[in-house]
Amino acid sequence: MEITKPTLLLNKEIALRNIETMVHKAANLHLNFRPHFKTHQSAEIGEWFRAAGVKCITVSSFTMANYFADAGWDDITIAFSVNIPEIPEMNELAGRIKLNLLIENMEGLEALQKHITWHTGIFIKIDTGYNRTGIEFNRTLLIDQLLEVIQKSPLLQFKGFLAHSGHAYQANSTHDIFSRHFDALLKMKALRARYQTEWPDLIVSLGDTPSCSICENFDGVDEIRPGNFVFYDLMQFKLGVCKLTDIAVRMVCPVIAVHPSRNEVVIYGGAIHFAKDSIINIDGKPLYGRIIVNDGDKKLLLDERNYLHSLSQEHGILKITPRDINYFKPGMLIEVIPVHSCLTANLMKELQTTDGEIIKMMPNY
Amino acid sequence: MEITKPTLLLNKEIALRNIETMVHKAANLHLNFRPHFKTHQSAEIGEWFRAAGVKCITVSSFTMANYFADAGWDDITIAFSVNIPEIPEMNELAGRIKLNLLIENMEGLEALQKHITWHTGIFIKIDTGYNRTGIEFNRTLLIDQLLEVIQKSPLLQFKGFLAHSGHAYQANSTHDIFSRHFDALLKMKALRARYQTEWPDLIVSLGDTPSCSICENFDGVDEIRPGNFVFYDLMQFKLGVCKLTDIAVRMVCPVIAVHPSRNEVVIYGGAIHFAKDSIINIDGKPLYGRIIVNDGDKKLLLDERNYLHSLSQEHGILKITPRDINYFKPGMLIEVIPVHSCLTANLMKELQTTDGEIIKMMPNY
Repeated sequence: MEITKPTLLLNKEIALRNIETMVHKAANLHLNFRPHFKTHQSAEIGEWFRAAGVKCITVSSFTMANYFADAGWDDITIAFSVNIPEIPEMNELAGRIKLNLLIENMEGLEALQKHITWHTGIFIKIDTGYNRTGIEFNRTLLIDQLLEVIQKSPLLQFKGFLAHSGHAYQANSTHDIFSRHFDALLKMKALRARYQTEWPDLIVSLGDTPSCSICENFDGVDEIRPGNFVFYDLMQFKLGVCKLTDIAVRMVCPVIAVHPSRNEVVIYGGAIHFAKDSIINIDGKPLYGRIIVNDGDKKLLLDERNYLHSLSQEHGILKITPRDINYFKPGMLIEVIPVHSCLTANLMKELQTTDGEIIKMMPNY
Repeated sequence: MEITKPTLLLNKEIALRNIETMVHKAANLHLNFRPHFKTHQSAEIGEWFRAAGVKCITVSSFTMANYFADAGWDDITIAFSVNIPEIPEMNELAGRIKLNLLIENMEGLEALQKHITWHTGIFIKIDTGYNRTGIEFNRTLLIDQLLEVIQKSPLLQFKGFLAHSGHAYQANSTHDIFSRHFDALLKMKALRARYQTEWPDLIVSLGDTPSCSICENFDGVDEIRPGNFVFYDLMQFKLGVCKLTDIAVRMVCPVIAVHPSRNEVVIYGGAIHFAKDSIINIDGKPLYGRIIVNDGDKKLLLDERNYLHSLSQEHGILKITPRDINYFKPGMLIEVIPVHSCLTANLMKELQTTDGEIIKMMPNY
């Protein structure tokens, strides 16, 4: 199919390889693999995981859980502390699949206890240092109180402790990722030591793409839940988590105008296509994407002095060096490697494989 | 309808008042009013403009032009320099409505001349200082060359000069907006002076919400194309362009967790709901939204020490002062005034009026 407007291109071969690598890593380390599906949000890509042997998944919202339950997944963890107003609607889903929910406070637990009408697994969300959601591992008084309530609830089954070391994304080096991961392991181990006697089957679930990609020590962990690795992106590359050749997505964008007088190229492709996450480029400025052009029959990745430099609603502005500006002319297509593939895919709502196949994602709400 | 997840709430009364105010302003200043529909992207809200007397519109993509043509709009300007790969597809649209396209280089014009099969209006895109797209007003050699080609093309009709002073959004004060607008007026006047003899009917089209909202001098301008004003947002408020009471949209979000130990509240509402445009708060940190809570029966806007401070995919983190943290508890709903209503609405794809009516927007692609 001819591309005439911003199109998110997926290299299926790379995505399949990324899935296979993580499946093998989990198997070698004897970890249950419960991949997060919030990056691809696609029933079809879900089938690629199923073909690789995956049986249980993670999602980030009740809406997404329903979508993947309809696609035949019957063991789903919603890795988002329970949203109380949605609990009544959750009963239908809890009745038809194995559903795990997260709690991090008494209000959420009491609302569940009151309104849930089906057997539901409960993870206690632990904050390993990201400081977004969860209970600090040493607040055992609160954890004891929660477990006491769970124990008395015939429908709620305590599954274990779940953490997302999202602060791995704020790391400045792979050393940082290792140390934050090691710190998370210690905290989760302390919890296991304290609660294992009473709850011998408790599961310790960890999961973020940086740690799961580069760390080898998962001592005391039962389950991992990475998601972004299926596509990877420039943020992961900058963290040292993947190679550029592991990134499975590119945005194809038409060139609209070339402005050599200010070293700029205007593309059709803006904030409503890429989303506005950025990383800091070598010149200290925000970078929204790296640029690939056609050089004869070959694809050429331009060096990082050439980059997607700003985004408005539909337009992107590339900063391009005088040496490389001759690669560009209005009407041609270029490729951009996105900074954050989760948010980019979420906006595009469909992918096109390099073979021209259209892959639909979860529709908006 | 009960709200259980992030929902973009629209106060229809405010939106209608914003439309009416701009319609009257354009009429009083004898300006053709061609509102930009990229903010609301909704056929239904389009009808509110039609009821107010609007007959012609602006859109930002060919996709959006098709959507609004299907909704009965027959006079549309695509305010985006022509995307060459889409020209063959544009013929069908050019055959059924009055379509105006923008050019800013010879490549775009020659592609149009070659491929367009219906009468089409052509605006030359002028850069008044935003430095995104367009031709600097004094590059009259290029403009002369373009006009020469247009004149020889039986299907292309030169309509005039069009500019978008997007740098009004980078203003630090309303004085800045006035001076940038005045500068744009001078540049457009110079163009009119040079080309009016040969093209006596040429149209000068300007349009951005900041200038159209607060400037009164549109000397030499024939048409305005603001868009954001229908909803406004915190960015416009910070620029001094609107009052808080002119902002027609709020995101309703459930509270997930309250963390008094770090003055934070976690909400269900993240980057996939708000988008990641921010303004700088009084503490020098990025602000993604202002917070409204229920205080008894009343709505209370918290001061700006309380704000939406960070966004991940589905979560938002509010910074909340110790004094105000008691307003929050898990499960309750709060309202957030968004920073950039265009990108927020684009992500949500539907609005709910304060009367509970669901308003659908243009679907994804």
